[in-house]
This record gives sequence, structure tokens and C-alpha cells, in this order.
Amino acid sequence: MQNKLKIINDPVHGFIKIPHEILFDIIEHPYFQRLRRIGQTGLLNLIFPGATHTRFHHALGAMHLMFTALETLKQKGVDISSEEEKGAMLAILMHDIGHGPFSHALENMLMDDWHHEKLSLLLMNRLNVEFKGELSCAIEMFQGKYHRKFFNQLISSQLDVDRLDYLKRDSFFTGVSEGSINTQRIISMMNVCEEGELVIDAKGVYSIENFLTARMFMYWQVYYHKTSALAEFLLVKILERAKYLVSQGVDLPATENLKYFLYRGKSSATDEDVERFTQLDDNDIIQAMKTWQNADDMILSYWCKCVIQRNLPKTIISSRPFKKEFIEEKIKNTNEFFGIDNGNELVHEIKRKLLPYDTKKQPIYLLQKNGKKIRLDESEDQLLSGLMINKTKRYILTFPRDISNYFLK
Amino acid sequence: MQNKLKIINDPVHGFIKIPHEILFDIIEHPYFQRLRRIGQTGLLNLIFPGATHTRFHHALGAMHLMFTALETLKQKGVDISSEEEKGAMLAILMHDIGHGPFSHALENMLMDDWHHEKLSLLLMNRLNVEFKGELSCAIEMFQGKYHRKFFNQLISSQLDVDRLDYLKRDSFFTGVSEGSINTQRIISMMNVCEEGELVIDAKGVYSIENFLTARMFMYWQVYYHKTSALAEFLLVKILERAKYLVSQGVDLPATENLKYFLYRGKSSATDEDVERFTQLDDNDIIQAMKTWQNADDMILSYWCKCVIQRNLPKTIISSRPFKKEFIEEKIKNTNEFFGIDNGNELVHEIKRKLLPYDTKKQPIYLLQKNGKKIRLDESEDQLLSGLMINKTKRYILTFPRDISNYFLK
Amino acid sequence: MQNKLKIINDPVHGFIKIPHEILFDIIEHPYFQRLRRIGQTGLLNLIFPGATHTRFHHALGAMHLMFTALETLKQKGVDISSEEEKGAMLAILMHDIGHGPFSHALENMLMDDWHHEKLSLLLMNRLNVEFKGELSCAIEMFQGKYHRKFFNQLISSQLDVDRLDYLKRDSFFTGVSEGSINTQRIISMMNVCEEGELVIDAKGVYSIENFLTARMFMYWQVYYHKTSALAEFLLVKILERAKYLVSQGVDLPATENLKYFLYRGKSSATDEDVERFTQLDDNDIIQAMKTWQNADDMILSYWCKCVIQRNLPKTIISSRPFKKEFIEEKIKNTNEFFGIDNGNELVHEIKRKLLPYDTKKQPIYLLQKNGKKIRLDESEDQLLSGLMINKTKRYILTFPRDISNYFLK
Amino acid sequence: MQNKLKIINDPVHGFIKIPHEILFDIIEHPYFQRLRRIGQTGLLNLIFPGATHTRFHHALGAMHLMFTALETLKQKGVDISSEEEKGAMLAILMHDIGHGPFSHALENMLMDDWHHEKLSLLLMNRLNVEFKGELSCAIEMFQGKYHRKFFNQLISSQLDVDRLDYLKRDSFFTGVSEGSINTQRIISMMNVCEEGELVIDAKGVYSIENFLTARMFMYWQVYYHKTSALAEFLLVKILERAKYLVSQGVDLPATENLKYFLYRGKSSATDEDVERFTQLDDNDIIQAMKTWQNADDMILSYWCKCVIQRNLPKTIISSRPFKKEFIEEKIKNTNEFFGIDNGNELVHEIKRKLLPYDTKKQPIYLLQKNGKKIRLDESEDQLLSGLMINKTKRYILTFPRDISNYFLK
Repeated sequence: MQNKLKIINDPVHGFIKIPHEILFDIIEHPYFQRLRRIGQTGLLNLIFPGATHTRFHHALGAMHLMFTALETLKQKGVDISSEEEKGAMLAILMHDIGHGPFSHALENMLMDDWHHEKLSLLLMNRLNVEFKGELSCAIEMFQGKYHRKFFNQLISSQLDVDRLDYLKRDSFFTGVSEGSINTQRIISMMNVCEEGELVIDAKGVYSIENFLTARMFMYWQVYYHKTSALAEFLLVKILERAKYLVSQGVDLPATENLKYFLYRGKSSATDEDVERFTQLDDNDIIQAMKTWQNADDMILSYWCKCVIQRNLPKTIISSRPFKKEFIEEKIKNTNEFFGIDNGNELVHEIKRKLLPYDTKKQPIYLLQKNGKKIRLDESEDQLLSGLMINKTKRYILTFPRDISNYFLK
Repeated sequence: MQNKLKIINDPVHGFIKIPHEILFDIIEHPYFQRLRRIGQTGLLNLIFPGATHTRFHHALGAMHLMFTALETLKQKGVDISSEEEKGAMLAILMHDIGHGPFSHALENMLMDDWHHEKLSLLLMNRLNVEFKGELSCAIEMFQGKYHRKFFNQLISSQLDVDRLDYLKRDSFFTGVSEGSINTQRIISMMNVCEEGELVIDAKGVYSIENFLTARMFMYWQVYYHKTSALAEFLLVKILERAKYLVSQGVDLPATENLKYFLYRGKSSATDEDVERFTQLDDNDIIQAMKTWQNADDMILSYWCKCVIQRNLPKTIISSRPFKKEFIEEKIKNTNEFFGIDNGNELVHEIKRKLLPYDTKKQPIYLLQKNGKKIRLDESEDQLLSGLMINKTKRYILTFPRDISNYFLK
Repeated sequence: MQNKLKIINDPVHGFIKIPHEILFDIIEHPYFQRLRRIGQTGLLNLIFPGATHTRFHHALGAMHLMFTALETLKQKGVDISSEEEKGAMLAILMHDIGHGPFSHALENMLMDDWHHEKLSLLLMNRLNVEFKGELSCAIEMFQGKYHRKFFNQLISSQLDVDRLDYLKRDSFFTGVSEGSINTQRIISMMNVCEEGELVIDAKGVYSIENFLTARMFMYWQVYYHKTSALAEFLLVKILERAKYLVSQGVDLPATENLKYFLYRGKSSATDEDVERFTQLDDNDIIQAMKTWQNADDMILSYWCKCVIQRNLPKTIISSRPFKKEFIEEKIKNTNEFFGIDNGNELVHEIKRKLLPYDTKKQPIYLLQKNGKKIRLDESEDQLLSGLMINKTKRYILTFPRDISNYFLK
Repeated sequence: MQNKLKIINDPVHGFIKIPHEILFDIIEHPYFQRLRRIGQTGLLNLIFPGATHTRFHHALGAMHLMFTALETLKQKGVDISSEEEKGAMLAILMHDIGHGPFSHALENMLMDDWHHEKLSLLLMNRLNVEFKGELSCAIEMFQGKYHRKFFNQLISSQLDVDRLDYLKRDSFFTGVSEGSINTQRIISMMNVCEEGELVIDAKGVYSIENFLTARMFMYWQVYYHKTSALAEFLLVKILERAKYLVSQGVDLPATENLKYFLYRGKSSATDEDVERFTQLDDNDIIQAMKTWQNADDMILSYWCKCVIQRNLPKTIISSRPFKKEFIEEKIKNTNEFFGIDNGNELVHEIKRKLLPYDTKKQPIYLLQKNGKKIRLDESEDQLLSGLMINKTKRYILTFPRDISNYFLK
């Protein structure tokens, strides 16, 4: 037998098999190859130097978990056709295809009326034309229009393979083992109930709680790490500043495609927008920041140096809102330190909020031995009441930075 | 330079170095070598086949973590003498030396007025005589009599190196990754406050919560797993039954040392007791159960077959107490199934209770940036309110077993 | 859908699924449950304390790899029926069922004319009667009588799933990472050639060489470790001595079943032999050695103390044969040390020999792009000529032991 | 005690501690921060998508291993002062500071008379001025001028911490577990002999052979993977072509700093060269290739598309030189395919050569029990004769690419 099976090395899941030709064709497409140049976790590598992994890798990983999940469901007697398998794998493979550079941070900066899911859908539709309708089923599943609900729930819910992959992957590459989850076990507990919805076998309750807890830890310890929150915030401020300067007639060097978006006003997405957007990646932004370190505008230049040289301002963290006087004092210090009078543009309060498990938005269901499903938060085994409480943290940027703040401690 | 450094392979921590000669001498002692034949997790391997690791290995692992913890404290400026290091490492090395076969389960079965810590102390004192007083400091630390409190807290508290090792080790060998903790990170957060007590640097709060959560998961998913609770329960019943039968004049085959304890009445520990106790290990019990499968007493024989052939009765689990009628029905069924009238001896309710974090018993303290310590449960970062709630589960044994119950699912 | 799928936690492979009812029935059988009490690596845990894993676990792991291998072959277009899958999984599950206590070491001590494969087959045939012929296909495959050769090659060849599992498992539990192999990758390279034989896709050549190299390292660093060679040797000497003493009329305490074999002369296996053999496990031997520490015979007592208290004699290792005078000197020293005149019974030369890859015995074949198979040793990619060279090491036991010898360094 | 200890998360080694202030200052310096934007393994992530790790991370990892190695040597009685420790850690931290974008591939393209070690030294000397001579000892060690040889051997030899880190790290991020080595074990075997040279305790011989074997596998399976060899080759051709076009008066868009080097002729390095070089990183090259996809020159445009869209030409691999006729046929096909007549510029033979262990260049020494050192290749334990044989492979590029070639199989 000749081996036609493609496999890709993945330090996270071992090996990723690509069982359908069309999956391969999508991976080869320039739209998808672009994801190689878009980091999965933006500037997080400033704090966790291992976190240089890409959306390309994440999408492959999520596709792999989808395959595993469908295999498990089939072994439990759920009927899944080859077409459906292909559709579900395609949908998750392409779920992030609309992400732009530094995705979440810059989502609304470049094309203000667009978020990545809308763009993903738009690009999927373009690909569907190119591939003569072969992606139609995948697109239906992605949009939640397919008649069997669990496919969409595997793609996008509080316990989808997207989350399973990114949690495990981010934990792996950051080295923050507290966020490591057992995807193999969680998937082995998946099932489909009579109503055609995704459920978890009741005995898997601890694994789900462990998953929710791990996710909460990753948010507070990694994604919302104060330096991380700060770096992401600066990125947005840099783009805002650049757009503002450009609107004032300043000429900022940038790649042609990035320039296009700096000058673009608010309007619906045109074909040119989309064309140029799919040429952008993290490199355009980093290269711009490298150059803008020498910009005439002191604020733009300062912020770019902060990020490129990882010379970040000091941040203070608090669970309570900062007092007005405290902020004013910080602004005063900043003015003095830099000899400026618009220090208020440099001192900011940033907020981060998390509800680890949302009982309202697509709740997780357990499948009991009697065949009935029950909401996770109604199970008597549910141990961690804290998971359903909303929590907010605030960070404040102050200047100058303190050296002790440099690396994650 | 000649390498005098002994190192031992440990799949959990990598390599264990033995930096002091006296540690080596203790490891060589027959009292300690005996721990090679005492499993760390009793009959848990009936459910998790990888869990065949021993108390011997755990004690070495805990010693290794103690070494790492002391290194960290020294790097943070805590003054620790070579004598103190030796003492602390000896104390943790010997902390389990008094464990008997199937330790926790049989603790009170063989020497009823003794628990393992009392026996550990007794054996330490014997060793101290043998080693001419070299263990005195270690024994003081073990008993909490040493003037610097943090040594005892590292040996025995809600965040000691004993727990750090057994959680990580049990998670490793069972394959239940939900219980895996990052011992390296937790230890790197340890510190000593002005009062000489063990504290955790404030920024380590998530790691501590993660540790407490992981521990809770291990309890409910592993240690208190219903089949595990059942196997442990049967072990106790088997020994009780054997003692009862012996007291009725029945002659049960057993090794000489085990026989001694079956016949021993309640009394203070004599020298012979201690001498014989240090000859016992898991093999004596397993061998006895193998033989007692053929005992005339139907109950003893039945229970031994259950354990040795892993043919365990069915268990039902519940968070609420079982109703009286329910239990009576189970007894009735059992009587019918076996054709007996003392089915009440075969149907039992078992309880397991856990308070993941006890705010009263040696609370965990965080060291704030201002140098003051604060209780973990008073920190504003404390996320998991559920950790301070007591939780009980109940299991009931019924007959005959259901095959679906066989392996951990 | 109700989940009927049994899964078992395995720290090595993650989760082991049991896809056929009959596999489950075999696992439940007392013949198979007995393997829980037979260590996979005998006394190796005296040197590598983590190596307490059992043949029970290994058999499950090998079954899991067989399942994975068959899945891969199916994905490559090899036609495999459900019956064949069941057969192959049963065969590998039972391949070690005839192992006795401390398997390899004592193989010929208890039933001298029997090796474990013969006994495995005998027990399989008994089980086949019990299960009404359902194991016939498995037994054919095990014996190499099944018409499709690759099934037998997966069970027993130079690259079978038995080796894949034990290498990975032993590496995992000893903590000797040099022996770790990538079973997932190797299996993904398996294929079946036109002649129906097991081959490896040509691009997998490095993985195979890595596997052979890892195996070689495990032999010299672990299995043939001098202390390991010594412990295993002592075990054999202890049983030999016990049989000799018994033949001289000495009454040695032992379990009934072990006693039976000490007294048994050379003869064909009777039904009683088999019956009693399936009651024996490591506990019988350990318990005997514990008791025999107090035997009147100085040699038996001395050897048992060596093993039980891990107080092992000094060993010297050499790649060349020892000179006669050297051995005589050691005997003289021994006589003096113990005040005896039969020191020659205590000083021994032990040999260990390894040919990492045997080009004659079931050679490994690569499948080239042109569809032709080629022997591994004829491939131009073959890098490690050293793998085809026979290597011998010799160890000599001398007395008294040197403490520096205590642990693996 | 206040925690002044900085630690950085590293998924490979766990945690990296920064025990000296000056190390921290160097890490903060823009010269070093630049390494965040230089990949450790160039275009290897086109084949192994996880391999996005950076030289920044590698340098930190190597520094960590240096710390561990020095700790071990101290525990074995080697006298090492705090100054020496600082020097050795600084030297390894900075050993790669002179690397440019896509380091090895482009080493001679940008500054033709410079290789990275020369540049590293130049930058170290600049930093030494800035840090008022505090780096002098480090620089001496780096150059091999320090009187105790083993420091330089730890920095640069056939068994230095540089190799230990990159092998383990590259294996980790590619997911090619065959290259994984046990750095902890190898380091624990390091020692210093009477002559002040780095040696390995004799009992570590297998670990060293395993290290050499793992390295060999990584070369053939990863670094010299045919697609990897091809991608690296194309990168060089692209830069060559760009320089040629520029020399012909073509105006190619590029960042200012990259342009500078495209126009720079062969000459000694000026201050401006160095200044501009330290502004370059992978982004400049990737951005240029992205833009040059639209270049008028068909060859430049074609190659850039190959790399950016990962649409690579087909490669054929061989251990023997290709025949002249074979190459000519490929050129003919290429001319026909593209409708060109300079196909000879697109078809190339690439060579890769490896001698896994060089017995002449800084041989590895074992320290025998008698205190004498012996060369690894003279040890009777040396098992893998194949490690001392030079091996060459040749690859040929042909067009058009074959899809089966896309991913590593």
C-alpha cells in the first residue's frame, strides 16, 4: 500500500493526520499560509518567551482535536457521515482564517466595523467559490445553520475544540503548566444527546471543572498578566496614534498594505480592503514599530521603543478601581519625568474581566446515566462555585518603569 | 575530582541527589528499605494500573523537594546552616518510616493504639540511638520543637513538601493529569517571613490555588474514587474478619509476623511489637488474602476473592445519605443472591469527606510586597471560594457486581 | 448514546480503550489478573525505584499499540476485518499470560522444561475451551499459522508492538529517557507489502534506527546494568540453593504452591503443575526470601539478605574475560572475609550479550517509493553500522560490597 | 526576605533563574532584545510548524544550563569563584549576539567577510565598554584565553551547553522526539580533570553516545531535511539575486537597513555597518520577500512566492552524486515548464555533510575511576562506530513541485 496520508509534527498533540484531500488544499492556500505569520498570542512572548506559536499551528491542532472528537462519537454509536466529518474539520480549520495581525488587540483598528469571525466567514465564502461549493457544509456548520447542533457546538461553544486546543497549546508554549488540560480525557467524555446536542458523560464532571479552572488560571496568570495587558494596550495606542498622525498629514513609513489601512476611513469592506487585508500579517506591524521608533512624534516614538526594546512602563494592579487622586499624581509624575504637559495620554487605567463559566451562554450539559441531560451548574457534583462569579481587575500604567517589572515573576 | 555524589533516577523529578552521607546511611537501613515493599497508594492500582509506586520512592522524592526548597530560600537570603539542611532532609526522609502495610487503610488494624506518625517517631528515636544522636535535630523539626517554625511547616502543613511530592507522584503514576502540579513553581514562590514562618510570595497566589484545586480533584477522582473507596474498605473488613475468626479459634494460615498481630490484643506497644512490625509489608497481606480465598468462612473467602481477582461488588455513589429502605432492599437481594441471612455484613455505607483548604489548621500565608503576611483566604486575589467548603460523598456496596463497573471510566 | 466504551488510564499512552467485549472478558479472567502481581522488570526496581510496573499493564499497553497499528494500516488501505482486529488484539493481550514470578530470571527454575511462550500457548488453549473457540484466530496469529504474515510480525518480530510497548514503558518508569521511543511515529510508518508482510515506509528509516539505538542503550544502561545483572543472578542462585537444600531434606518455609515447585522433579507438565503455576506470583518468591533470611544455611540466608535488604555484593564489570588468577584471589578474599572455605560458591562470572539488530532473524524491511521492499541493512540511509555488531560484557561478583555501588550512578 | 530573584518561564527547562544583576542588564540591552526577532531555526517552521522559537530563548536556556553545570562541578569539589560563574554565564548568554537574520543561511550574504562569532565578539567588546569592563572575564572565556580551559569548553566544544540547549530545544519545538536528550543527566556527569579540562565521568559514556546519536538524527531528520535544505538554499539565492539586480540598477523595495546591505560592496566592517546590522532581524527579510513576490524579475518573484506561500519546488534526495544527464534533463523540463531558457538557474544540486563525532576537533574525554582521562573513541564501552564516519547527502531541485512533497512525512 502506498502511503498517501499526510502527517505533520506537532509537539502538543504528537502527530496531526490530514485525512481528506480538500483539507490539504485549504492548508496550501495563501489565505491559510498567511496564518503562519500571525502569532497565536500576540505580544505575550514579551513575558513568556516560548509563546511564539502561530494561528497556523493552532488551526491545525484544533482540526486534529475535531477529528479525535468525531472518532470518539462514532465509537459511541453516533452516526457521522464522511461528508459531515469533512465539513466539521474544514470549518474548524478555517475558523480563524479572518484573523489579522495581532488579532484580538488590533481587531477593530484596521477594519473598524469588522471582527474576525465576520472576516473568516467572508474569506470562507470566497474560498467556497474557488473550490466550487465544496465548503458549503462547513460554512453551514460554522454559522450554526446545520441541522445537527453538535457540530456547531464542537466549533464554537464553552467547550469547543477551539478552546481545547488553544488552552493546551498556550500552556505548552508559555510553560505555564497550571493551564494544561487533558484534551484526550475531555474528548473521551463527549457524547451527543437525543436532541442532537453536545453533552458530557456525567462521570466526566471533574474533567470539565478542571478545564474551566485551568482556563480561569490561564486568563489571570497569562492572558491578563499585567505586562501582557500593558503590551496589548500599547499596541492599540500605537495604531491609534499612527492613524491620528496620518490624519493630521504626517507621513509615516509603512508597508504599502499597512499604509492603506492607516488612511482608510470608516466604511464598509470593499474588495480591495479584503485583498489587502489578506496580505497583512504581524511583520507589517512589527516592521512599522521598528521604524516608528525614530518618528518625530514623541509619544509614538516612545511607545514603539517600549514595545520593540521591551522597555515597558511600570504597571500597578488592583481589584478595586483606582482613586482619582492616585491617577492624577501619576500623571503629574509623568509630566515631570518627561518634561511634558500631556502626561494624561501616557497614564491609563486598563480593565480586564472574566466570568469563567457563563451559565447563560451555551451552558455545558452533562449526560446522566438515565439518559437525561442536566446543566453543569445544577449537578450535585459541581464543586467550584467560584467559577460562576464575575471578576474584574484593573491595571494602571505609570512612568518610568521599574526594572523589577521586567520579566514575569 | 572524584564524583562522590550519589544520584537516583526518578521519572517524576528527574534526578535525586543525596548530598549528605547520613541520608545515605538511613536509606540503606532495613527500616527504610522495607518501604520498598509498601505501596504509596494501596489498592489504587486496581483502578489505576500504573499506581504501583512505593513509599520508598515518595520519601526520596519529598527529600529532593526539601533540598530544592532550602536552596530557594537560601537564594532569597534566608540563612540556613548545613546542620539545619541535613536535619530537614532527614526529617522528611523519615517522615513515613512508621507506615505499615497498606498504610492508611490498615493503620489501626494491626496496632490499634498507634497511628503511623507515632510509630515514625518511635523508629526515628531508635535510629537516633543507632546513629549516636545525629538525628536529634531532625527529630526536633519533625515534632515542631525546633525554634525556627518554617522547618516543621515544610515537613507538615497544608503546603508541605510531603503533599507536593505525593500529589505530583500520584498524578504521574495514575496518569490522572488533572492532579499534576508545578512543584518547581510553587517552591520558587516559598519564602520565610519575619516571624520565621513559611509564607508564599504574593504573586504566587494562583499557583497555590491551583495546587489546592488539583488536590481536591485528586481526592474526588482518585483517592475517593468509588472503586478505590470500596477496595480499601474491603481490606479493612478482611482484617477485621480474620481477627474475629482467630479470636473464635479458627486457624488461618499467614506469615509468622502477620499471625502475631492477628492474635495480639489491645495493649501498649512492646519491643517485640515494634520488631515484628518492621518485618511486615504489603506482601504479608497479599499473600494472606491469596491463601484466604480458600478459607472455610464464606465471608472471608468471598472478600479475598473480590480483591485478589478484582471481582469487586457494585457500588452506588451519592452526595446525600441513602434511605433506610434502599439499604434494606440491597440486603434482601444479597441474602437471596448468596442464599444467606447475614447479608447485612456485606452491604455497607461508606463515607468520604473533604475540606480542600482548612482556614483553621495551619493556614497558608501570602507575603505581600509591603513585607506583611496575609492569610490566603483574606487575599483579594483568592478566586475559588469553593475550596473552603466541606463536601461529603457516600458510597454503598451492593451485590452482585455489575461488569460495567470494572475499570475506571 | 450510552457510553459502553471502557477506558483505562495509562500514564504511558494516555488512555487505553477496550473496543471488544471479549478483550474485557480475558482481562477479567484470574489468569490475566494474576499478571497484576508479576513485575515487568523483576528486581530492576532495586536500582530504578520507579520500575514497579507490572506485566498486566504492559499487556494492556501492547494491546493499545496493536489497535493503533491496525488503525494506521486500515487508513493506508490495508483490508482488516473486525475478526482479524479482535484476533490480533487478543493475541497480544495474552502473549505474556504464561509468565511466572520474576519471569525471565526464574523461567527455567520452576518448571524446567517450559519457557513462557510455551506456557502462554497452553493457557491460551485452556481459555479457548472456556470461551468456546472464540480465541482460535488469536492463537493462530500468535503461532504464526495465520495466512497473513503481518499479524504475527506485529506480535513477535524485531519490530513488534511488544517491544514498542516495553521499551517505552520501561524507559518511562525507570526515568531513563535515553530509551524513550516515539511509538506513535514508528507505528505511523508501518505498512504491509504485496507479499502480506510488515514493512516500514522508507522515509521512516531514521525512526527505526533510533528505535534500535534506544533499545541498545536500554540493554546496556538498564537491563544489563551491573547491579541489575547481579540481582537477577542472585535470584536464580537463591532458588537453586533452595531446591538443593530441599533435596537434602531441609524443611524450608514457603507458600504451599511454591513448595510444590521446590519439590517437583524434572517431568512433563501435569494439570496440577499448570493449576498451581497460575497461583504463583512475585509475592510467593519475595515472601520466601523474607523468611529465608533466617534460614540455617549460611549461603541461602546471606543471599536472601542481600536481596531483601538491598545489601548487594560488589560487582566489577569488564568487556574482556576475567583472568583466572583474579577470580581465585576474589575467592580467597571471600573465604577470609566470611571464614568459610566454599567461597567459590559466592564468586561468579556473569555474562551478558547483545546483538542490537539481527540481520538474520526476521529482518526489518523498508518499503521503497517504487513499491519494492528492501532490507534495513541494505538501505543506503542506514547510518549505524555499529548496530549489527555483537557485544558481550562480563561482571564478576566480589565480597564484601562497596557502598559506592549502592545506587545507579 | 524580599525576593529579588528574577525567573523566566521556559517550557524546555522549567524555570530560568537570573542570579546576577549584570546578566539582567545584558538581557535588557537592545542588542540582546533584538534576538527576540531572530528565529533559532530559520525557515524550519515551514516543515515543523512548532519551530518558531528564537535565539533569545536559546541564549537564556544555554545560560541556565551553564548555571546548572557550574553548580554540579562545585558539588564535585571544583573551586569556582563568583566572578568566574558570572563570566561563564555572561559569555554563553552573549555567544550568539552577533547572529543576523536567518543566521546560518545568510551569514555571509549581508556582511561577506564576517561570520557570527566574529560579530559576537565585536558586539561584546562594545558592550564591555558600555559596562565599564565588567564583561572582560566573559570575553576571555569566550575567546579561550582564560587560563582554566574548561570554561571555554563549556561554551564551545563538541559537548558544550550551547549544543545541549539547542538540541533539546529544537527537539522540543519541532516535536521530533528522536532528538531529545537528557541534559540533566549529561550535566550531572561533567567533571574537571587534573589538567583543568572538561571531562565526563566514565559511567556517563552511554549518555554521551546517546547525545551524539540524537544530534546525528536531528541533522538528517530535521536540519538537513530535504525541504529544509531547499528552503534555506532558496533564501540564499533570493538575497544573491536581489544583490545582483540592485547592482544592475534595479530598484527593489526594502527597509532602509536591508537596502544598505544590498548595496554594500565587499569591505571591512565600518561603524555604520555594525550600527545598521544590529537593527536588522528576520522581519526585514520576510517583509522584503513578501514585497518581492511582485518584483518584475521572474526569478526573484518566483523564489519569493515559493517561500512565502510555501509552494516549494520538488526535491530529490540521494547519497550518491547525481548524473550529469539527469540534471540536464531537469533543466530541460524546467525550461519547458516556465517557457524560459535559463532553467539552469533554477535547478541546483545541494550538498549536506555530517561527521557526528570528530575525533580530532576538541575530542570528548572520559574520566576513569583511576583518575586518568581517556578519549571517548578509545573507550572499550564505545558502541557506535558509525558515529565517526563522514556522511554526505545530495539534493536536487526540480520543477514543478509535487504536492506529495508539501509537508514532512
